[in-house]
Amino acid sequence: MNLPRIHLITLGVKDMAVSRAYYEAMGWETAPISMDEITFFQSAGQVLGLYLQDALNGDTGLDAPRPGGMTLAVNTHGREEVDALFAKALEAGATLLKAPHEMPWGGYTGYVADPDGHPWEFTYVAQLVPDKSGALTLPDKL
Amino acid sequence: MNLPRIHLITLGVKDMAVSRAYYEAMGWETAPISMDEITFFQSAGQVLGLYLQDALNGDTGLDAPRPGGMTLAVNTHGREEVDALFAKALEAGATLLKAPHEMPWGGYTGYVADPDGHPWEFTYVAQLVPDKSGALTLPDKL
Repeated sequence: MNLPRIHLITLGVKDMAVSRAYYEAMGWETAPISMDEITFFQSAGQVLGLYLQDALNGDTGLDAPRPGGMTLAVNTHGREEVDALFAKALEAGATLLKAPHEMPWGGYTGYVADPDGHPWEFTYVAQLVPDKSGALTLPDKL
Repeated sequence: MNLPRIHLITLGVKDMAVSRAYYEAMGWETAPISMDEITFFQSAGQVLGLYLQDALNGDTGLDAPRPGGMTLAVNTHGREEVDALFAKALEAGATLLKAPHEMPWGGYTGYVADPDGHPWEFTYVAQLVPDKSGALTLPDKL
């Protein structure tokens, strides 16, 4: 039985160049699959992401802009696992933010807020599936 | 060279009983060292914490209550490493929240905000030092 994991921590940012430069100065290395609107950094079995705040707000369904917004994500092995986690969270007292749905880029993802409003994403992305140990490692390309 | 790590993710919570019950329902197991005002969950080489929001605000020095507040922490091997990370972050463009200082419970800790305001803690706690691989494992007692 693997320990529970948070696979991706996403920080909402205003200016990608500024924020990417800051994290690179702190020792994080921008992964090759990064794009203009999103930066990925590989950590040990986990990924730290920088994502434009407006886009993050759009994804989570949180209508008010939240400066310094942050989301935590669990990556799964399939759509059924996303649906199951989503149902479990609602049953446990989470609030619906966005029901699981297909994303334009190919993922299947949903968001809930925990009892204090922290947004959690449950997601299936074929190129970003954890290994047997539960670790998430970024591919060289998407 | 180990990959960079986030050792502790702390979520600010209003009602510890409600939030702890939620995370337990989601499969996280409350660690024995948890206390009334703080809950620790062991993940793979990382710790997820629930901490009363008022106390978290006090620690970070963020004066306005931030519902859904969250901090990311890097645990180090000594006070000098905390000071060095702190200086590096300020040099890289972070904002000072609280300079490193001794905590009443024995730790040495400081907080900065990244360019978008996300609070990061650099900390040394003798009982919570990462191992050679960089992983942080909770002790059975503090």
